[in-house]
Amino acid sequence: MPGPARDARHAAGGVVDIHSHIYPRWYVDLLKQRTEIPRVTGDVGDERFVMFPSETRHTRSPGRPMDDSYWSIGEKLAFMDRFGIERTVLSLGNPWLDFLPGDHGLELARRANDEFAALEGETRGRILGMGVLPSGSPSDAAAIVEEIAETATLHGAVSGTRPCGVPFDDPSLEPLYDALERTGVPLLIHPHYGSALEELGGLGHAGPVAIAFPVETTIAVARLIFSGVMERHPSLRLVASHAGGTLPFLAGRLDAAWRSDPSVQQRLHRPPSDDLGRLFLDGIAYQPAALRAAAELVGADRISFGTDHPFSVADPERNLAAIDEAFSGESREAVRRRSAAELFGLAALDC
Amino acid sequence: MPGPARDARHAAGGVVDIHSHIYPRWYVDLLKQRTEIPRVTGDVGDERFVMFPSETRHTRSPGRPMDDSYWSIGEKLAFMDRFGIERTVLSLGNPWLDFLPGDHGLELARRANDEFAALEGETRGRILGMGVLPSGSPSDAAAIVEEIAETATLHGAVSGTRPCGVPFDDPSLEPLYDALERTGVPLLIHPHYGSALEELGGLGHAGPVAIAFPVETTIAVARLIFSGVMERHPSLRLVASHAGGTLPFLAGRLDAAWRSDPSVQQRLHRPPSDDLGRLFLDGIAYQPAALRAAAELVGADRISFGTDHPFSVADPERNLAAIDEAFSGESREAVRRRSAAELFGLAALDC
Repeated sequence: MPGPARDARHAAGGVVDIHSHIYPRWYVDLLKQRTEIPRVTGDVGDERFVMFPSETRHTRSPGRPMDDSYWSIGEKLAFMDRFGIERTVLSLGNPWLDFLPGDHGLELARRANDEFAALEGETRGRILGMGVLPSGSPSDAAAIVEEIAETATLHGAVSGTRPCGVPFDDPSLEPLYDALERTGVPLLIHPHYGSALEELGGLGHAGPVAIAFPVETTIAVARLIFSGVMERHPSLRLVASHAGGTLPFLAGRLDAAWRSDPSVQQRLHRPPSDDLGRLFLDGIAYQPAALRAAAELVGADRISFGTDHPFSVADPERNLAAIDEAFSGESREAVRRRSAAELFGLAALDC
Repeated sequence: MPGPARDARHAAGGVVDIHSHIYPRWYVDLLKQRTEIPRVTGDVGDERFVMFPSETRHTRSPGRPMDDSYWSIGEKLAFMDRFGIERTVLSLGNPWLDFLPGDHGLELARRANDEFAALEGETRGRILGMGVLPSGSPSDAAAIVEEIAETATLHGAVSGTRPCGVPFDDPSLEPLYDALERTGVPLLIHPHYGSALEELGGLGHAGPVAIAFPVETTIAVARLIFSGVMERHPSLRLVASHAGGTLPFLAGRLDAAWRSDPSVQQRLHRPPSDDLGRLFLDGIAYQPAALRAAAELVGADRISFGTDHPFSVADPERNLAAIDEAFSGESREAVRRRSAAELFGLAALDC
């Protein structure tokens, strides 16, 4: 039975979660066919998701348990009910289609995107799907962006930090940026590969999740900005996971380093914080101080509540408490729901 | 001629800089004997400091120019005068003694420490020396910590993230931690190696300086904390460079990852932010938002102004403006000078 705090949340209309994942069973089965990480091991009911090399060492059961919260829409709705989440913008979880053969990427992207597009109708508008990009070629990825834009029930695209196998500053990606800019499709940038993994050995999955992930996002977005992608494509709507990795904290340092190094000013003609300030962020930071730094960089109307469900690091109550402590009034309302509605074009919920 | 703002700074007593480096000429000459990075190339007057692999590619003159601000105490004092810096706690710059043969490390540490100890007298108390640790063995390092503690004009020790060639969580370092805790000598933890350097290729020195350095500090301190060093040595006084790398932003995420992973709770029995909150930080962040996040983690009385002089990324005016915007009253006074005086045991300046 909901307590008073829960009622207050519902009275305020609940929150919108923009960072939540699901793994369709057919996709889990593809990961089970793999013999190298990332992979899924074990039989149904005892499956484990192995993502980082550090999870395979010094243990007889590598990785982490994978239960039906990873693939069940019913479980997702129950989770949303439990934490007062009114709507969720749902994406395929990592590693997306990055590790699948290029010639199947397009077909698999369409299969996934059809399923994600159907969620809105199946859940009476509570779960809104994002599309996923194929891994084969930038022109394929651009084509899928166009298809996402034409699908009223797809609300953005999710991508790892190496779309089509290259970093964001690779010139071959220009067709993808053209398509994203032309269509206005928001791109959720999500870590998977992990930065500096070798330096984080022996720290279970906590070290990689806590540090390698946000650093990967930081480097990926920094490369993109330092190469002038946002300068050339000012209308891109890029959403950086986990409150921007570490970018809100390092923004001033990136500017100082840019100012001190003429060699990087040839490709980026203005301080990187100009572009950093135009990112969108989720609010997955677990603490008010980081959220405040994020808001100083981009403004509360570019930050949206997120959970990271179904991963074990998800802690929606802590994230929500941090938001309510860091923000008040219009800013709080923005981070709880309004920023997400504007970014992803969500209609008012009819129920 | 100083303007009104400058006069106001002097009226307030000036600031204390705890993060400033110098390279004695004999030490530069040792770096010039090296054929691999880190190294110094060129003839006197045209010397260049080459620190990162990315600085050697696509250029005829790798590295960055090294002028007499790197070794001249007169230049250091002129820099201090220019920016209203009353006192500087000065340390040998990276790579310290890390790359020098182990059997010379002890002798070279003593040579450096004798010179740094003499600075206080030579500059009428305006420049206070820090000691440096030898790279040979933890017992040698512990012995030098004892010598630093017995030297009234040495005010701490500086170390890279691999003292004696191992990360901070290596069990062999316990004698060093014992000595630091017993003597109360503060340890300034400074990056040099750079994390995720391969992912930052093509970004000149800006990428490594902006990201690889703070990430290196983040990982080094996280390893130390996750291994329980601060739990076992609660009186350690550790100073994390560059406002703690990214730790003030990631503190909540480290806690969330720790809570989600039983394997790391076996070595660290409390949330990592408990120990993070006991770090000391410099205030080199270039922006108020990062300083505020730092202060939420450790409190203003554990943050001290710093410059990073003579490196080109140094921007004392911006750092000071960020401090004055982020803090007021007692907190501002703490970050400008009082925290440093307390941490390093500085007497009132007699002039």
